[in-house]
Amino acid sequence: MAEAERPERSRRRTLSKGRLEAFSDGVLAIAITLLVLDITVRPPGALSDVLKEWPAYLAYIVSFLTIGAVWLAHTTLTEVLARTDPILLRLNLLLLLAVSVLPFPTRMVADSLSLAPTGPERVAVTLYGLVLLAVRILLAGLFSYASRQGLLIEALARPDSEEVAAVRRKFTPTIIAYAATVAVGLLIPIVAVAVYFGIAIFVATPFRQVGRLFRRQRARAANE
Amino acid sequence: MAEAERPERSRRRTLSKGRLEAFSDGVLAIAITLLVLDITVRPPGALSDVLKEWPAYLAYIVSFLTIGAVWLAHTTLTEVLARTDPILLRLNLLLLLAVSVLPFPTRMVADSLSLAPTGPERVAVTLYGLVLLAVRILLAGLFSYASRQGLLIEALARPDSEEVAAVRRKFTPTIIAYAATVAVGLLIPIVAVAVYFGIAIFVATPFRQVGRLFRRQRARAANE
Amino acid sequence: MAEAERPERSRRRTLSKGRLEAFSDGVLAIAITLLVLDITVRPPGALSDVLKEWPAYLAYIVSFLTIGAVWLAHTTLTEVLARTDPILLRLNLLLLLAVSVLPFPTRMVADSLSLAPTGPERVAVTLYGLVLLAVRILLAGLFSYASRQGLLIEALARPDSEEVAAVRRKFTPTIIAYAATVAVGLLIPIVAVAVYFGIAIFVATPFRQVGRLFRRQRARAANE
Amino acid sequence: MAEAERPERSRRRTLSKGRLEAFSDGVLAIAITLLVLDITVRPPGALSDVLKEWPAYLAYIVSFLTIGAVWLAHTTLTEVLARTDPILLRLNLLLLLAVSVLPFPTRMVADSLSLAPTGPERVAVTLYGLVLLAVRILLAGLFSYASRQGLLIEALARPDSEEVAAVRRKFTPTIIAYAATVAVGLLIPIVAVAVYFGIAIFVATPFRQVGRLFRRQRARAANE
Repeated sequence: MAEAERPERSRRRTLSKGRLEAFSDGVLAIAITLLVLDITVRPPGALSDVLKEWPAYLAYIVSFLTIGAVWLAHTTLTEVLARTDPILLRLNLLLLLAVSVLPFPTRMVADSLSLAPTGPERVAVTLYGLVLLAVRILLAGLFSYASRQGLLIEALARPDSEEVAAVRRKFTPTIIAYAATVAVGLLIPIVAVAVYFGIAIFVATPFRQVGRLFRRQRARAANE
Repeated sequence: MAEAERPERSRRRTLSKGRLEAFSDGVLAIAITLLVLDITVRPPGALSDVLKEWPAYLAYIVSFLTIGAVWLAHTTLTEVLARTDPILLRLNLLLLLAVSVLPFPTRMVADSLSLAPTGPERVAVTLYGLVLLAVRILLAGLFSYASRQGLLIEALARPDSEEVAAVRRKFTPTIIAYAATVAVGLLIPIVAVAVYFGIAIFVATPFRQVGRLFRRQRARAANE
Repeated sequence: MAEAERPERSRRRTLSKGRLEAFSDGVLAIAITLLVLDITVRPPGALSDVLKEWPAYLAYIVSFLTIGAVWLAHTTLTEVLARTDPILLRLNLLLLLAVSVLPFPTRMVADSLSLAPTGPERVAVTLYGLVLLAVRILLAGLFSYASRQGLLIEALARPDSEEVAAVRRKFTPTIIAYAATVAVGLLIPIVAVAVYFGIAIFVATPFRQVGRLFRRQRARAANE
Repeated sequence: MAEAERPERSRRRTLSKGRLEAFSDGVLAIAITLLVLDITVRPPGALSDVLKEWPAYLAYIVSFLTIGAVWLAHTTLTEVLARTDPILLRLNLLLLLAVSVLPFPTRMVADSLSLAPTGPERVAVTLYGLVLLAVRILLAGLFSYASRQGLLIEALARPDSEEVAAVRRKFTPTIIAYAATVAVGLLIPIVAVAVYFGIAIFVATPFRQVGRLFRRQRARAANE
């Protein structure tokens, strides 16, 4: 690594990690908040009119959780990132591109989703799934590139370290799940959206911590 | 706490507090600024046409003050937060979800509010109240979780400390007030919106500081 | 000041200055960028159609420069701010409220401005002027409150210091100018918008620095 | 430089570099994310309907890459920036003005681009090109001003240093390319948009790093 030989330049690169975080936080925060614009277009009506818009709410929640999960994973990455390099900054821009495109297929799904599959719905759900898949692949690529190029903190510097392998183990199944669901969506779009919802919940849930929390509370209750 | 045993990991978690703040600031800033899009849709007209849109302005102000109050409370929380954990980050995402949904019922209220109660108005105001209530409950939950899990700074580490109790005392009445107003809104929607306005003003006003300011100025005037 | 006696609390307050900056930067950045949505609504046409929309471009530029000037002044304030207090945070929220409302009258002006005064135009320009005036008054109030309450850095701690007086001298004429222009706008709206444009340019121009720059370049040219 | 004589003021200016970064990150993040609103307006349809919107996607990608490239260049600038001055802050605001205007001509191009040149299309593509050109000129102006005024870090303090000359060499050809493409766009708009796409890709690609990466991987493969 050329940077290792030039300490001053390396220090500068560390600064741009701050801007990488700030810019990513900005784009993710805006993309996640803009989603609501996709469900504010209809005039208000009776309760049944509001409930009839359930596809818009479902698409909103799935997209919100997905972007939220990207933010959580991005936070995890920058926590272990020691420095950036020009290619990492561009890979990150590609990830932000995929995330900020998300409101577009989200609105398509919101506008076309119904219990009986239609042509537009199939197109919308497939496009939506492909963007979700691209987001996940780019996120995995970011981790993978950073670990291969030795950009992570010293504790994780070796690409064959246990923690890096754990992260990789976590990405592969979701990528496979997204790819499979895109195929399902070509047949039964509504099922695919339900699965995307499930994956988003699954990815965003910190099972280990919640489990620990419950065990601790049970232990506390038993002591009393 | 496992983190207490691993100082390096604990230091990393402190970094993600910075991103928790940056991302929350981003979402809150965008949600509060997007609200104005809900009142820019009508073509301009004579003064009477502009004044006729009072429900839109009222809903705008209530939502602005509510998000402003969330930001103030969030600032107070992160000031006393020593570190984050995975569950706190997710609870915070849920709070941001509720806040960023707010422009949707705000526009519904803006579009349907009138002096004579109508069906759509009742639906809109109830939905609006439920989101406001959810925001408040999630904010209280965030404080409560952080204090129970020992995530606060040392001075506030014990969950039975006086300061934590004071914060809790402040949340409970507003939650009850919001819940009661949702019920009122089912009968007389316009009154509920007026009460939401009152609560937002009440929550955002720093009574103690304003009182101190007035007393000090009076003392100064008496000295002269 | 109670805070002076409690160093730990004072340190915490300094942290919330960081969030005051971050949140204000966020709202100002969003408000300034959202303005463009007010000029993207028309379908594109021939060059004459695009030029016919000049009121939208004029209103856009005036609002952009005004928010830019608020950001510059806000930066100057936080540079000399030693700590915040609960009332300052609320005054700042009011300033952000006025700024984030700006896209609404901007669009009204863009939609109604013409060379021959009409009723809607008069309403739009007056409302626009009042928001610009409110922004300026709240900005001056923020400075004034911070200096009176001893929240500024030590060098500027005394409210009768020369630098604080200089800032105050800068605010008063613009407030008078805005108030007078609101009155003018009731008679000839188009002139008022032209004056708002002039004020925005005037406020945003760093005359002393530009003058110094020109003198230095002339001196350099003379030496050669 | 007057600031050099007053260390305290100089330190304060360094702080405002932080806000320069935060505000610029905010505006660039919002502008890049708002672009998607320009492609969410049509109702969803069959796959052929979605594909028919290719001009919107092309304009979106070009604008996204352009703003992304501005962010990358801006990051490079602030990395070597030692301090700011009032004029630099205003030049930066002008750059942000040009960037945040971009969604407007982007939508015009998206709405009018077709394979057969039309009047509106010519206007839209020319306006689009002029904004892209303005962005590039302002970016170059920012670098040039900072280096002439001695605002860069010590290693780059002399305006005739090799690194500053390298940056200048990089800007001049893209400015000439943009200017030439604006002229081309008056004749064959679609070709101009294709060239803007090419320039954006070219500017955003870190050729040296990608080349180094490939050479290293080939060397690794040869060793195995």
